[in-house]
Amino acid sequence: MIYDLAIVGAGPAGMSAAIYGSRGQLNTILFGDETKGNLYKSHLIANYLAFPNAITGPELTKLSIKHATSFGATHQKNEIIDITINQDGTFQLKDNLQNTHQSKTVIIATGQSYVLSGIRGEKEFTGKGVSYCVTCDGYFYKNKKVIVIGNGDFAADEALQLLSYTNDITVLSHGKDFQINDTFLDDLQKNNIKMIRTSRLGLINGEEKITGVTSIEPLANGNSFFEAEGIFMAIGQAGANAFSKKLGLEMDGNFIKTDKNGKTNIKGLFAAGDCTGSPPQVASSVGSGCNAALSAIKLIRNLSNYIQY
Amino acid sequence: MIYDLAIVGAGPAGMSAAIYGSRGQLNTILFGDETKGNLYKSHLIANYLAFPNAITGPELTKLSIKHATSFGATHQKNEIIDITINQDGTFQLKDNLQNTHQSKTVIIATGQSYVLSGIRGEKEFTGKGVSYCVTCDGYFYKNKKVIVIGNGDFAADEALQLLSYTNDITVLSHGKDFQINDTFLDDLQKNNIKMIRTSRLGLINGEEKITGVTSIEPLANGNSFFEAEGIFMAIGQAGANAFSKKLGLEMDGNFIKTDKNGKTNIKGLFAAGDCTGSPPQVASSVGSGCNAALSAIKLIRNLSNYIQY
Repeated sequence: MIYDLAIVGAGPAGMSAAIYGSRGQLNTILFGDETKGNLYKSHLIANYLAFPNAITGPELTKLSIKHATSFGATHQKNEIIDITINQDGTFQLKDNLQNTHQSKTVIIATGQSYVLSGIRGEKEFTGKGVSYCVTCDGYFYKNKKVIVIGNGDFAADEALQLLSYTNDITVLSHGKDFQINDTFLDDLQKNNIKMIRTSRLGLINGEEKITGVTSIEPLANGNSFFEAEGIFMAIGQAGANAFSKKLGLEMDGNFIKTDKNGKTNIKGLFAAGDCTGSPPQVASSVGSGCNAALSAIKLIRNLSNYIQY
Repeated sequence: MIYDLAIVGAGPAGMSAAIYGSRGQLNTILFGDETKGNLYKSHLIANYLAFPNAITGPELTKLSIKHATSFGATHQKNEIIDITINQDGTFQLKDNLQNTHQSKTVIIATGQSYVLSGIRGEKEFTGKGVSYCVTCDGYFYKNKKVIVIGNGDFAADEALQLLSYTNDITVLSHGKDFQINDTFLDDLQKNNIKMIRTSRLGLINGEEKITGVTSIEPLANGNSFFEAEGIFMAIGQAGANAFSKKLGLEMDGNFIKTDKNGKTNIKGLFAAGDCTGSPPQVASSVGSGCNAALSAIKLIRNLSNYIQY
C-alpha cells in the first residue's frame, strides 16, 4: 500500500491540504492529532474570513477535521517521528507507534510549538491575560499595560508589533541576558519600549484577571513585581523538526524553505503553514496548505509544466 | 484625509486583507462590489476549510463582507480605475465616479475576470454544466465526458488538470487556430486528449442538463455537434490591470509579481489573490490577503526588520 500523498500535521495547513489532495483524487492520508495543535488551544479566532462572529479553537477544529476527511482522506492521530527517502524517490514515514507508511509525496505541516515559560500560573491564565501571539491577540490589549517575556529577536519583534495597540510595553528577560540584534534594539529604544534584565520569573499574579508577574530574585532596586494587564510569552522559538534536517531540507533560519507553491528543495516533498515561516494565522496556513496540495497533484499527475491563471 | 491602507477589490483576498488591516489598527478602506466577483458567482464552494457542508458563493460573500467591515474598515462599492504615486510616495486612487482617495499603502486584489465565450446558453448553464475552473469544479465531472473550450495554454492546462477526474476530454478551439506550447502538446497527446480545430461555437445544447455544444460551421466530415456532460470555458486570460502596468509594477507574465508576503517592486504597494497568479481558490486568496495586510502593517509601523516565527 503506497499513498499518493501523506500530510504530516493536522492543523489548518494540513487539513486544508487534505481537502485539496483527496478532492483532487489523490489517495491521501493525514497524520496528527487535531486537538494537540495551536488551533485547538486558541480561545477565539476572530480573523479567519467568513466567521464574522469569531469562533472558538475547538469549534473551528471540529468543523475543519470533519471537512478534511469528507472527500475520502484517511486520518490517523499517530505522530510522525521520522521520514526517510526510499531509493525510488518515494517516502517512508515512521510514526510514534513504530508503524511505517509509504507515500509518493509528502507535505510537512507540523506547525510550530510555543515554548512554555514554566512560570506558575501560565497555563491557568492562557487566553485570560497570557498569550503567545501578538498578531492573534494584540487587539485585546488596546491601550493596556503589557509585558513581553523573552530575551531574543522573537521577543523584540512581538514587542514592536504591540505598538499597533499600545505604547506601554515592557520586555522582561526571564533569567537570561538579552540577545537582540542592533536593528531591533534601535527600534525598541526609538519607541520607548522598556527592557529589563530580570531573574527567572516565578509567578503570574492575579485572580479573575492578571495583575502582573513576579521575579524570583528582586532587581538591584528591590523591585520584584512587574505590573501588567496582558503578558505575551515569546521565549526562544521551536526549531524546525529534526526529521526535516535529516532529510536534507533546505532551511531558512529555523523554517523549511519553500517557494510560493510549497515546493522544497526535495522533489515530492512539500511544506505548508507555520513550519515554513509563514504568518502563524489560520488564513495564511489554509492558503499555504491549498497551494502545497495543488503542487502535489501536479507532480503526481506528472504534468510537465504548470501555468497559473 | 489619508488612509493607512486602501484595498482595491472586494473578493476573498481583499476582504481577508481588510480584516487584518483594520484589526491591526490601520485606517483601512476597501473598494469594490463584493457581488460582482467570482466568489459571488460561484454556485458552491466545497474546499474552503471549515465549511464541511459546502456553502454557496452568495452566502460565503455575505458572511465575508460582514466580517471584513466588522473591525472598522470603510467599504465603498466604487471601482478603482486608476492609481498614481504621489511625490511623497503615497498613493492616489481614482474611482469610476471620478472621486479621488489618498492612502499610504495599497493592496491590489482585483482578481481575474473570466473571459466569456459568447456562446448562446453560456450564462444559463453556468454552474449547471458550464464551468470556468477545473480546480474548483472538476470533481463534479468524475468519469464524465467533458469539453474544454479555448485555443491556448490556459485551455491545455485545464484539459490536463481534468485528467484527475476523467479520461474523456476534448478541446475545441472555438474559431481560432491552436496556439499551445510544445510541452503541453506532448502532454495532451500522451494522455489521449482530443484537440479539434472548430469554427466558432454557436450554441450550448441541453435542457435540464447540457448535452453538448454546436459549432456554427461544420467540420470537413460534416459534424457540427460535440457531445459533452460538462464544458469548461478556458478562453484567453484576462490580462492584469492596466493601472498596474502604468504604475511600473513588475509583472510575471500577466500577473503582478510578489514575494510570499505580497510585496511588489514598489514600496507601499502590495498585491494579493488571483491577480498575483496564486491558485484561484478562496483558501489561497484568503491566505495571501492576510499576508499582504501584515506586510502593510509592518510598513506603516515603520518597523525596520521583520522576522517571522
